[in-house]
Parts: sequence; C-alpha cells; structure tokens
Amino acid sequence: MSGKPAQSRGTEGAAAFPVDDRGVAARLFAILDAFTAPPASSLTLTAIAQRTGIPLTTVHRLVGEWTSWGGLARQEDGRYALGMRLWEVGVQTPTARNLRTIALPYLEDLYESTHEHVHLAILDGGDALYLEKLSGHQAVRVISRVGGRLPLHATGVGLVLLANASNEVIQEYLAGPLPRFLPQTVTDPEELRRRLAGIRSQGIARMSEEMTAGSSSIAAPIRDRTGQVVAAVSIVTRTTPRPSPEQEQAVRVAAHGVGRALGYRRATG
Amino acid sequence: MSGKPAQSRGTEGAAAFPVDDRGVAARLFAILDAFTAPPASSLTLTAIAQRTGIPLTTVHRLVGEWTSWGGLARQEDGRYALGMRLWEVGVQTPTARNLRTIALPYLEDLYESTHEHVHLAILDGGDALYLEKLSGHQAVRVISRVGGRLPLHATGVGLVLLANASNEVIQEYLAGPLPRFLPQTVTDPEELRRRLAGIRSQGIARMSEEMTAGSSSIAAPIRDRTGQVVAAVSIVTRTTPRPSPEQEQAVRVAAHGVGRALGYRRATG
Repeated sequence: MSGKPAQSRGTEGAAAFPVDDRGVAARLFAILDAFTAPPASSLTLTAIAQRTGIPLTTVHRLVGEWTSWGGLARQEDGRYALGMRLWEVGVQTPTARNLRTIALPYLEDLYESTHEHVHLAILDGGDALYLEKLSGHQAVRVISRVGGRLPLHATGVGLVLLANASNEVIQEYLAGPLPRFLPQTVTDPEELRRRLAGIRSQGIARMSEEMTAGSSSIAAPIRDRTGQVVAAVSIVTRTTPRPSPEQEQAVRVAAHGVGRALGYRRATG
Repeated sequence: MSGKPAQSRGTEGAAAFPVDDRGVAARLFAILDAFTAPPASSLTLTAIAQRTGIPLTTVHRLVGEWTSWGGLARQEDGRYALGMRLWEVGVQTPTARNLRTIALPYLEDLYESTHEHVHLAILDGGDALYLEKLSGHQAVRVISRVGGRLPLHATGVGLVLLANASNEVIQEYLAGPLPRFLPQTVTDPEELRRRLAGIRSQGIARMSEEMTAGSSSIAAPIRDRTGQVVAAVSIVTRTTPRPSPEQEQAVRVAAHGVGRALGYRRATG
C-alpha cells in the first residue's frame, strides 16, 4: 500500500527477454503508480517511461492494455490520465466505502453546524489517508484531498491516529524523519510523545499553523465496536486567537456519533 | 468501460501455454471485474476462478500480484476484497475528482436546504454513473451508491442526462431493452421520447416511484463552459402528494451554481 513504483528492469534490452507474468503485472502497476508519486493529472508516454524506467515500447503496449480496459484514458491532447473504470472499481473498496457510508450523515451534521472543512482519515502505511472531505464555499484553503496522504505529526487527524496507535507504531514513527513544515510544527520526539499522551487523555487534538499557514484543526478519534480507534474526524478552520469550545464539542459529537454507528459503547461510571 | 469480464481462455490447459502480455493484462483486469459484476464485497479464489473462467492456479498467482501491490487485500477469513491502494489511485481519476471538487459546495448547500439525498451523476456507457451522494440520517431508503450505475429511463439524473444526449445516443437507448422496475416506470419508447422533450424544455425532470417504491426524484442538468450537459444533480425524497416548488428551485439553483463554477454563462434576454 506504500505506492512505491515497482522495481524497474531498467534497460531497453529487457523487452527482448521473455517476460513472465510477474514482470507484466509489476509493470502494469508501476504505470499506475507513475500517476500518483508525485501526483500527475496526465502524463505523456515518454513521461511514464521516464517515471517508471520501463522501455517506451513496453509502456506503449501496456498503456494500451490499461486504456482498453478503462483504467487509463487518452485525452484529446494525446496525454494519458487515470480512467473512469479505475475510479468505478476503486470506490467499491469495502474498507473505504463502508466507513464513509456510516460516517457520512455525522460528517454532514458537523459540516452543517460549523461550515468548515470536515475530514475523515485513517492510519495507512504511516500516513493519515483522507477518506472524505466536505467543504463549503467559504472554507479556508487547505492541502488535504480525498485519497491524499499527510504526515501524522503535522495534522489533527494524524495526531489522533498516532496517539491511539500501538506502541510499536508510535516508536517507529517518532524514530523516523519528522519534517518541519512551519515554524510551529512540533518535531521533537519527546515533545511529540507528551503531546500524544495529552491527546489520549483529553480525547481531542488541537493544532494551529503546523501544516498550512492560517489554518487550525480540531480532531477526535472514532472507535469501533471493540473500542479500537479506526479513524479520526476533524474540522479545519481559520486560525483564531482562542479555540472555540462549541467547535470542539461539535467534533466530539460527530466522532461519538460515528463510533456509536460502528457499535462502540462507552463504559459508564 | 462497460465492466464486462474479459474473454476468458476457458480451459485449465491454457495455463500451460506461453502467456503473452495481452493475456496477463486481460486476466488481471478480469479479476477486478469479478468484484463488480455483480458487486461482491469479498470473494474466495474459487469464486474468482468461477466468475472469470480463469484456471484456479492462474487466479492464485495473479491475485498474489494484485495483493502485493495493494489492489486486492486478503481478509482474516481468507477471502479477498478490493484493496485500499486501488481506492487511493482510483479516487485520483481527474474526470471524477475535478467535477466532484467543483460541485461539492453546491451539493452541500442543496443538502443543507433540503436534508434529502443529493446525487451527482454523469452519463457513462449508457448508464447513469453516480459520482457523489450525500445523505443524512433521515433520508428515504434508495439503491444508489457512489460508483454505482442505474438505468437512464428510470432515474431522475438518468432522464436529464438522456434528454440532453445526442440524437444517436437517445435513439440507441430507446431501441434497447427498457426494463420496468415498478408499475409506474415509463418503458414505452414514444412516451419516453415525449418525456425527454418535456425535460429539455423545462430544464428539470420529476419522477415518482419508477425505480424505488416510496421515493421521488427531482433532477436538473449541469452545463459546462461550452453549454454541453456534463452531469446532472438530483434530490431523492419521500413521495408526497404534490411536488414542492421550493425543492425544485433548490435543485435548479444547485445545478446552475455548479454550471457557473464550470464556466457556463446563460444567454440573457
């Protein structure tokens, strides 16, 4: 799920060797990966060959295969883009679809009561993967998008997901590179560890100007039937001098609503 | 883009023949198609082999390829489901993503003013393909879903899309099978032709109990910069004795809003 391009064969001569199933499959997937890392809305055959290291003649043939199925589409300008059939199959992935379907009415409520960006994200491969984003006309500019990934330590949903991950995942994440996006991004592992403890005990994460200038985020965990945190919900607002308790409450209510719909029952007393 | 499973080689013996690229690609795609026609949230290897006609040993190997990339995922019960990497790549398809991103704030407005299901659909391969669906807690039960397809003649968005399609597309659609889902479904080609003319002149489609008992729909066309209808927006409501002019107005406003955002300018005077 890391989206890393598959190992390429590298040389033009490779096309002359007998190509086994594994080679063809890996190359077909590498061609899709070329559109996502870094994201490109369209690519020429030459650019696909450059990004994948697959010989141009092979790219030409395999792009033809993708196109005839509908996984890629040839545009009027001759460039290729990801195709509608891929979208149609992809959105049926049950993990994403089931959670989105259950969460959507609560996300709608949260949007309606705040008119801010509403995000739903899960932990995937050490990133916050954004499953849903609702936005109005007036919402502050943000870089999140459905299907996009953002780092755990610099986003509200990411901090919530990391705070509730296993010790091993936390350990590994804090040992890795922790890029600073803005002066206020917290990148010190020990400070992050204390922050994660605070988020666990308060059940909410607040952050301000750590990923995008001018925007702040309030995020809360969504628990499933077993009590495990399976997702996080957030709103992203313009940064204001002091946090709004009403907004915080709205995010908590939405997260609890989705959790209840997933079968989570809070312990009482 | 029809989602038809690729032609299968049919016999177990096929695995022994040298398999060229085309064969491998077609089989890889046929395995994905197996999850969508009819939709299955998970399948065993045997079921995949049955649905595709691909020999089980080949299915085993190719499912392994999909799984290692993340396009399929093996569940705890040993069955396979569409995988998160497929979702992640699929949602980046520009046609779907750009239209959704532009339309979303207007769909939010429409949801907020009606609290009914809000649909965004495009014409694709003779079907209404649903790009987006917003739903609240109380909305009436419907069968639409994001990524799903419904017939043009029995849905509000479908009628709007068909009414604004080329004569050739209309001709071909009306010549094909027009299944009756409920007693009120209009299936007579001449009556449908008159209905499409009415929808074109009024700029709105109303339908009641033609696809799902108890539900009605109001749909309007979305035009792009060139004036072409590129999508349709609708709300689906509980059937009431008389149509609500306010709801109709809300759907028109949303459709015009998306059109304006796409660059459409209505002729004046």
